[in-house]
Amino acid sequence: MPDTDDRAPDPMHTRILDVASELFYELGYRGTSVDAIADRLAVAKPVIYTHFKGKADILAGVCGRTTAFAAGAAEAHARQTGPATPRLAAMVRELTLRVIEGRVYLAVYFREEMHLPADAYRKLSSNRRRFDRALSSLLQQGVDAGEFVIAHVSVTTQAITGMTTWLFNWYRPDGPLTPAQMADDMARLALTMVSARPLES
Amino acid sequence: MPDTDDRAPDPMHTRILDVASELFYELGYRGTSVDAIADRLAVAKPVIYTHFKGKADILAGVCGRTTAFAAGAAEAHARQTGPATPRLAAMVRELTLRVIEGRVYLAVYFREEMHLPADAYRKLSSNRRRFDRALSSLLQQGVDAGEFVIAHVSVTTQAITGMTTWLFNWYRPDGPLTPAQMADDMARLALTMVSARPLES
Repeated sequence: MPDTDDRAPDPMHTRILDVASELFYELGYRGTSVDAIADRLAVAKPVIYTHFKGKADILAGVCGRTTAFAAGAAEAHARQTGPATPRLAAMVRELTLRVIEGRVYLAVYFREEMHLPADAYRKLSSNRRRFDRALSSLLQQGVDAGEFVIAHVSVTTQAITGMTTWLFNWYRPDGPLTPAQMADDMARLALTMVSARPLES
Repeated sequence: MPDTDDRAPDPMHTRILDVASELFYELGYRGTSVDAIADRLAVAKPVIYTHFKGKADILAGVCGRTTAFAAGAAEAHARQTGPATPRLAAMVRELTLRVIEGRVYLAVYFREEMHLPADAYRKLSSNRRRFDRALSSLLQQGVDAGEFVIAHVSVTTQAITGMTTWLFNWYRPDGPLTPAQMADDMARLALTMVSARPLES
């Protein structure tokens, strides 16, 4: 996942999050120490503390990346003008690729959310609301333009979110489809679900 | 969630699982003791041990209910004969209602899976594979009968699983739709996703 939160995309910052997410995934948040993160990175512990205040702050970084990306991407597509169909396809395709790439981050997020500091939890909840609002807005634009047929925009928003997010749980790199094929199929499923006209691409 | 695992649906057994799932949800698996479960149930600790070997066994019971139900329901619908369309609708409707009802159980499952004893973990994984195979089979039957249009049955299987399962994460009892309306809408979305003919019901 690219850094789309407030921090600069410093390579060490990213490496710490990558290694921490692996350890949180393998051993759980409680079972992982900052020492263990430093050990696996082969750096001295103070290096970690120049980037993060402590373990909870690292967890906030791990959990924050996907939600920040998803909210930003959905808002960008919802803000654009033109037909909603290609924008929905592009959004679902992008989200699918990011979920596949960041599946360990997401697994940690869903497991360890309760250990987040209160301010990080609020920020992530706000990212999720931004994402929901943007996707709902995009779907409503499609309905208003006569491109989509949707009974309940709120349910369809969550259905699309759920089917893409769920990839974190079942995607296997050795499966028959490449991430790009998976992204295309998810986009196609989302368009079919809203009864969009077939997309010319 | 009804008891569909191997145990008899003893009311105390179910109460223990209900209360344990609440506590695991609130405090985490590690943060919950068998004493705390007995306290909240207002029973003596030995009562718990007449039903479960220990805390890990209780967790296995909590996590097992949904997967056992889902596998059994999907297999029942896949085994039936007749058009696939109403069977898929019924399956998605049922699954949606169970996910809504058992959302705390599911939240605990996804968070605490790593604490499961090895044999319980294997059994749950096997339930999930049974569910996937049954839903895939039902979808393939629809394709073979010319009822459904599906590019990749495996992806659509997971898309339907994901959009229904995700309800555990976002469903709110005070939302605008009743569980039954939600179940109808999910069934409709699944049928639209596989380009099924509109269902007469």
